[in-house]
Amino acid sequence: MSGVLVFAISGALSASDKNLDLFGAFFAAFITALGGGTIRDLVLGSTPVIWATNMDYFIVIGIAIVLTYFFKRHIMQWKKTLFIFDTIGIGVFTIIGLEKSLSLGFNPIVSMVMGVVTAVMGGVLRDTFVNDIPLIFRKEIYATACIIGAATYILLNKLELSDEYNLVLTTLLIIIIRTLAIRYKLSLPRIDRSAPE
Amino acid sequence: MSGVLVFAISGALSASDKNLDLFGAFFAAFITALGGGTIRDLVLGSTPVIWATNMDYFIVIGIAIVLTYFFKRHIMQWKKTLFIFDTIGIGVFTIIGLEKSLSLGFNPIVSMVMGVVTAVMGGVLRDTFVNDIPLIFRKEIYATACIIGAATYILLNKLELSDEYNLVLTTLLIIIIRTLAIRYKLSLPRIDRSAPE
Amino acid sequence: MSGVLVFAISGALSASDKNLDLFGAFFAAFITALGGGTIRDLVLGSTPVIWATNMDYFIVIGIAIVLTYFFKRHIMQWKKTLFIFDTIGIGVFTIIGLEKSLSLGFNPIVSMVMGVVTAVMGGVLRDTFVNDIPLIFRKEIYATACIIGAATYILLNKLELSDEYNLVLTTLLIIIIRTLAIRYKLSLPRIDRSAPE
Repeated sequence: MSGVLVFAISGALSASDKNLDLFGAFFAAFITALGGGTIRDLVLGSTPVIWATNMDYFIVIGIAIVLTYFFKRHIMQWKKTLFIFDTIGIGVFTIIGLEKSLSLGFNPIVSMVMGVVTAVMGGVLRDTFVNDIPLIFRKEIYATACIIGAATYILLNKLELSDEYNLVLTTLLIIIIRTLAIRYKLSLPRIDRSAPE
Repeated sequence: MSGVLVFAISGALSASDKNLDLFGAFFAAFITALGGGTIRDLVLGSTPVIWATNMDYFIVIGIAIVLTYFFKRHIMQWKKTLFIFDTIGIGVFTIIGLEKSLSLGFNPIVSMVMGVVTAVMGGVLRDTFVNDIPLIFRKEIYATACIIGAATYILLNKLELSDEYNLVLTTLLIIIIRTLAIRYKLSLPRIDRSAPE
Repeated sequence: MSGVLVFAISGALSASDKNLDLFGAFFAAFITALGGGTIRDLVLGSTPVIWATNMDYFIVIGIAIVLTYFFKRHIMQWKKTLFIFDTIGIGVFTIIGLEKSLSLGFNPIVSMVMGVVTAVMGGVLRDTFVNDIPLIFRKEIYATACIIGAATYILLNKLELSDEYNLVLTTLLIIIIRTLAIRYKLSLPRIDRSAPE
């Protein structure tokens, strides 16, 4: 739920950058926080999607909007704090998405993809709706941290590590990779025009 | 169905603004008219979606394309007429989406959201596909009218007003709010950069 | 599968044009190749979607990325070859999507639409995510070839032609229409502002 809150705040901030109104802000917050999980549930056929039967999500998103509206200036100063929450968010979302998919009986590769989808698709949809090229397609190690974390979970799962330890370990791994990537400005190679083969 | 027709015409006009070809126009008309209901059905797990089993929708959209193609100039002059139909459209779509969701057993809050989704997501998807920031995120009371109407429906429903009266009353309410909002240029506050807290 | 490969390469090339990183390229390749089929499966309620239970798709997309990364220059020179594969791709995708939809018991018109959706929505989603107006809304006979091919399949099906022959014939028809359209620069009329009625 803290992941939902932080992702929703990130959506609301993005709405604010684009000069959207309150409804636009709610939409952006919602899609950022729950878009990834929604797509995962749709694709896996696990409908109704999770937020259609649990009203807590709406409350958390409402709180995010209120917080952003009243404390916007402070939040901008808290960028570091936000980054930490966001990083925890993607770690937790990846492993939750992965575990849900495994528990529904899907194979490890698909479950890995679903973990990453849960963590990153919200941000991709947010950027698409506010008419940007999704940030994570261009910069920084972001999805990659999720992929490595998810792959490690699968591996440790095969090695019969208990799910609880595995969850904690791989979530931490994602957080660490993401933090190091930001600190040392690591990014993925591109397939760009001017690049030699 | 008249809602579908008007929404489809609005999609076709948008395609025309963007200089799309006939296929693009059909796609835009389709997504504007049926995108909201499709997302509602997907999220609620009510598949196949409604238009996959009822061919009338395709016929209505075809009619919308033909009308737009042949009477474009007149339609542009009829902007006021179009506005009226569009407003009736969102009123009807909101309450239909809400009732469908309630009848599938979902809780009132989710059903309210689904009503709004039915009414507004078509326009959001249309704007996204033709590469604009969705209009309703930025201007005017639009989704808000739907939200107020949907909330009122839920309230009157709790007070045990019959569904028929409730449908008519809340649809009218949405139409009235939307009309007043346009007349007096009301809009929602924004969470923008320069705004004081 | 060769359709998946070619569509994935087209997605990866598009990612390269937009200067996306490797993750962005994988996402673009995936959505281009499997986006259409995914939407078809979701709308028809045929979930989990096809790639959630068959890992071969991931392998093919991985191959497409590797090929694009290492042989980018050559691929650009092979534009003609790519065009041929892409054209075969849309032919095969249209008829596969159509047959799947018919076999699930949907009516011919909906099945036709689903064939076209399978063939073209991948490209539409790719363009939307990388922030372009989808190419096929504006130029050339593309979806139209799919529509004519799908309609012909339905017709021949009513005339009780065997499915095998029908598949081959209509796929070829799509390929021929598309090729002629490119050769003679045919395109659909537009509903544009300046156009007389």
